[in-house]
Amino acid sequence: MRALWLEDRTLTLREDLPVPTPPPGEARVRVGVAGVCNTDLELVRGYYPYAGVPGHEFVGVVEEAPGAPRWVGRRVVGEINAACGSCETCRAGRRSHCERRTVLGIVARDGAFATHLRLPVENLHAVPDDLADDVATFTEPTAAAFEILQQVPIGPGDRTVVIGTGKLGHLVAQVLATTGCDLLAVGRSPAPLALLADRGIRTGTAADLPRRRADVVVECTGNPEGLELARSAVRPRGTIVLKSTYEGRTAIDMAPFVVDEITLVGSRCGPFAPALAALASGRVDPRPLVEARYALADGVAAFAHAARRGALKVLVDC
Amino acid sequence: MRALWLEDRTLTLREDLPVPTPPPGEARVRVGVAGVCNTDLELVRGYYPYAGVPGHEFVGVVEEAPGAPRWVGRRVVGEINAACGSCETCRAGRRSHCERRTVLGIVARDGAFATHLRLPVENLHAVPDDLADDVATFTEPTAAAFEILQQVPIGPGDRTVVIGTGKLGHLVAQVLATTGCDLLAVGRSPAPLALLADRGIRTGTAADLPRRRADVVVECTGNPEGLELARSAVRPRGTIVLKSTYEGRTAIDMAPFVVDEITLVGSRCGPFAPALAALASGRVDPRPLVEARYALADGVAAFAHAARRGALKVLVDC
Repeated sequence: MRALWLEDRTLTLREDLPVPTPPPGEARVRVGVAGVCNTDLELVRGYYPYAGVPGHEFVGVVEEAPGAPRWVGRRVVGEINAACGSCETCRAGRRSHCERRTVLGIVARDGAFATHLRLPVENLHAVPDDLADDVATFTEPTAAAFEILQQVPIGPGDRTVVIGTGKLGHLVAQVLATTGCDLLAVGRSPAPLALLADRGIRTGTAADLPRRRADVVVECTGNPEGLELARSAVRPRGTIVLKSTYEGRTAIDMAPFVVDEITLVGSRCGPFAPALAALASGRVDPRPLVEARYALADGVAAFAHAARRGALKVLVDC
Repeated sequence: MRALWLEDRTLTLREDLPVPTPPPGEARVRVGVAGVCNTDLELVRGYYPYAGVPGHEFVGVVEEAPGAPRWVGRRVVGEINAACGSCETCRAGRRSHCERRTVLGIVARDGAFATHLRLPVENLHAVPDDLADDVATFTEPTAAAFEILQQVPIGPGDRTVVIGTGKLGHLVAQVLATTGCDLLAVGRSPAPLALLADRGIRTGTAADLPRRRADVVVECTGNPEGLELARSAVRPRGTIVLKSTYEGRTAIDMAPFVVDEITLVGSRCGPFAPALAALASGRVDPRPLVEARYALADGVAAFAHAARRGALKVLVDC
């Protein structure tokens, strides 16, 4: 099959990979559309060791599902963590943290920039008929934004700040806006801020950040300065949600976390069901984020485009 | 009056300070016993700017309380944060984080290493008659340990680790043991570990730490290596409670906090009522921590003793 292949920090187009054969419990999916995420770009930069097909944001159609024929022909999205189901972490109900997990396009499991992929049937979610492919492709990052609401209570009137209005920050702002919180989205680039303002979300720059006043600050910038800004904005006993990772070590003054009793919450993958519901209802609309689309044959160029400073979502038709 | 005085990182004994006159709403307390805390030592080292009388762990007797005569003659301990009561933080119920607070012996309010101090009457707690002065002096740090239970649910069977068995870590371990959690206290020095083992608490060294298995890890070492150990011990979606501060910046790899969705909770002052109850019932017994006592006239020597590596609690008779 055709796929993008990552090895030694080099991305190539290959035509010689075998179409995956799903073992019992897994399904083979014909990929329709896949999206380029910052994690994909970090894999190419070598932040994490991975050799294989990248890609974990996708929509597709099930072609084969041994032992689960009802899935064949259905349009699906898929949770990316494939769990063992038997380790202590799985038995405790934290399957997305399974100690032996593979992760689609990230850890020991070929991903979505390919004509085909395979995933456990239990990871699949059927896509409502009226949800467009391009929108459904955003289910995984939208779920990651909904993870915040699983971890931190955010309700009407809560002073909430999202720092960083890239691809993920934008979705986080839209998802938090569904709670009725008092929301401010802060970024550097006017264009993505304008997209959020179009949806009625209050926007600003770092100069507009509250000083020690926000109940919850979500850090989505991907650089340590974002964490410094978050700390300056959060109130005593407030919460910082860390949604993006930084390469290497970050020099942090930890004393204010103790003196102000700040809580820092790391946040990763999230629940697909509320993400699909929000996308289907239009409460979250990712379409303005799509800035380019490429054929899979031009996938290397798609990655180069996505790596441009300030680029929003690049989709790949697989 | 006689008092210890800190200025420009130098501690001196003074005899010329005026006995404080309490304004309405405050009380003058004749200090009985005061304890040396690590924060006091950090003030002397200049980690925080402060000039005045240090000391915030004390027991004493109220001598004068304008408008609140029922307090006169009572033996008391006192919460250390004096709040304005009217700022946004106070009105939100977070008085210990009042933006205009003074803090006994730490921020703009003379402290307990003196014959007398003054505190708002609302900060005072009467000490049960059968609670010895030496034990009551530990109310403030015991309350700081109880703060953890206000912030993080810890119950029977929860795998909990306390790293650091100095003065505060020892009290934290005793307080957490009251919950019935599956507790391990980890430290370097055999003597304080033996004191905890005497109370039936499981103890060990860093080599005994679980790997990614603990539900909650409380970091009480006061050095950044403790935070590294905490991170290696906590499970995915577990919680690290940061109870001690480090000078300057700490280089931290933040990615595991995101990937493992770890929560970090800063923790400072806590509730006096459960602390007094635990001390009065003997469920928490700080007496083995007392390793020396000095007269106030020898207070400078008391500080020097407390600053020795591995020193436990030094009390000062005021």
